[in-house]
Amino acid sequence: MKFTKMHGLGNDYIYINAITETVDNPEQLAVQMSRQHYGIGADGLILIRQSDVADFMMDMYNADGSRAEMCGNGIRCVAKFVYDNKLTEKTELLIETLSGVKRLFLEVEDKIVKMVTVDMGKPELLSTKIPAISDKEIIKNEKIEIDGEIYHITCVSMGNPHTVLFVEDIREVKLEDIGPKIEKHPMFPKKSNVEFVEVITNNIIRMRVWERGTGITLACGTGACASVVASIMNDYTDRRVDVVLDGGILTVDWNESNDIISMRGPTETVFEGSWGGL
Amino acid sequence: MKFTKMHGLGNDYIYINAITETVDNPEQLAVQMSRQHYGIGADGLILIRQSDVADFMMDMYNADGSRAEMCGNGIRCVAKFVYDNKLTEKTELLIETLSGVKRLFLEVEDKIVKMVTVDMGKPELLSTKIPAISDKEIIKNEKIEIDGEIYHITCVSMGNPHTVLFVEDIREVKLEDIGPKIEKHPMFPKKSNVEFVEVITNNIIRMRVWERGTGITLACGTGACASVVASIMNDYTDRRVDVVLDGGILTVDWNESNDIISMRGPTETVFEGSWGGL
Repeated sequence: MKFTKMHGLGNDYIYINAITETVDNPEQLAVQMSRQHYGIGADGLILIRQSDVADFMMDMYNADGSRAEMCGNGIRCVAKFVYDNKLTEKTELLIETLSGVKRLFLEVEDKIVKMVTVDMGKPELLSTKIPAISDKEIIKNEKIEIDGEIYHITCVSMGNPHTVLFVEDIREVKLEDIGPKIEKHPMFPKKSNVEFVEVITNNIIRMRVWERGTGITLACGTGACASVVASIMNDYTDRRVDVVLDGGILTVDWNESNDIISMRGPTETVFEGSWGGL
Repeated sequence: MKFTKMHGLGNDYIYINAITETVDNPEQLAVQMSRQHYGIGADGLILIRQSDVADFMMDMYNADGSRAEMCGNGIRCVAKFVYDNKLTEKTELLIETLSGVKRLFLEVEDKIVKMVTVDMGKPELLSTKIPAISDKEIIKNEKIEIDGEIYHITCVSMGNPHTVLFVEDIREVKLEDIGPKIEKHPMFPKKSNVEFVEVITNNIIRMRVWERGTGITLACGTGACASVVASIMNDYTDRRVDVVLDGGILTVDWNESNDIISMRGPTETVFEGSWGGL
């Protein structure tokens, strides 16, 4: 089976053209392929399928085999995959995901896609829609207790649930300890991604992420968007913000007039391979 | 450039047929390719070259780009690589390494190599040859001070230097803390690999390894041999021992009559790929 390993800001997935390749058990394959040392090693598996409602469909699985709704870094690589592999000649694409159809704008150099801007849709702030169990309609700077300590959280859905926490010094955050405790907190019936944010200026934030079902990753596109929304909700930043992640920089713009978020960032192919039957 | 990702007990390397592929700067390529998320991800890079003195040569680089002399898990995969890719039909091979020519015995099922026994040569116990700076000719159960604490070490060279420490409970060893401190201790002019060993029975030991230039890996073949030699030197085991590593089991046999060590273990191909020019 042919695959391509790609990454957006070090958020790396295994990409398979499932229009031509048959993938019988993607959940199990995602676990096997994502494993380091014994597999290919990746944050997960993304299958590119045909779509009835868009140009292509992104069918995405985390490293633990669970289905993922949407990933901003992943979908940029889907755009590069279909363009570079000549599945399309369009530089403006519609891609179907489990959290709706996304619009993408491709920047091409020497017939290769370098940067992609993703129309990430509107953020969802209602706690019932995130979903998060709360007596508040919107969870903005609300208290949560973990192991006897109080944290302040702001919750945003970008198609998937995010919990954002602002800190003075991000280097002091023990993400591997606190991340999974918030991810699996009973107030989140579908669990939650977790972002810690340090505000640098009103146009720059530093962010680190604990991804639901995966753990610490170098970057999370929907997490960057959710972090900027939370920063704006709490009056920390302007509406266009550079998000500095462990893996690089994403520029997030929350349009005031139409409520839509756009995110621009790089995408790279690392290698192509064939799996199984060797 | 074509490559194959293989592993022996989770000790994974990127293998390139350098007889047909041109590799200009292997040190730099090893660093780029070995990197997780942005590269292929591996413990290092192994180039298969022609040899004037053996069937093939194994030219090996760690993940940090440093040259490696020999790796027992790596050389088993070299045997599988050359046989499965039909570079040879022999099931008994001589492979040149920086620490001499090694003899390998291949076990083939359905035209695919499954298990390989490596003739690992004779251990070197003289401290001057390891090399280790000491007033003792042989370093067996000698004291060493790290951060004010006393450890007992036994030193063995298997072509590369090893320092073995016996412990009551291997789960209590903080390998990431103590490993690099022993690796870079001034008594080792060429640094040292570090193995912690818990003796289970006189035929089974549990071992964890800190590899010089790489860090914690799931298995190290020369480390398994050195650990068995150290176990026998200290009268903990018989001469044929199953070594239980994080990545699986190796069987090490130190032949009393000819002093030669043989090591038997599995080898697997994970995937084939092409790197660059995409």
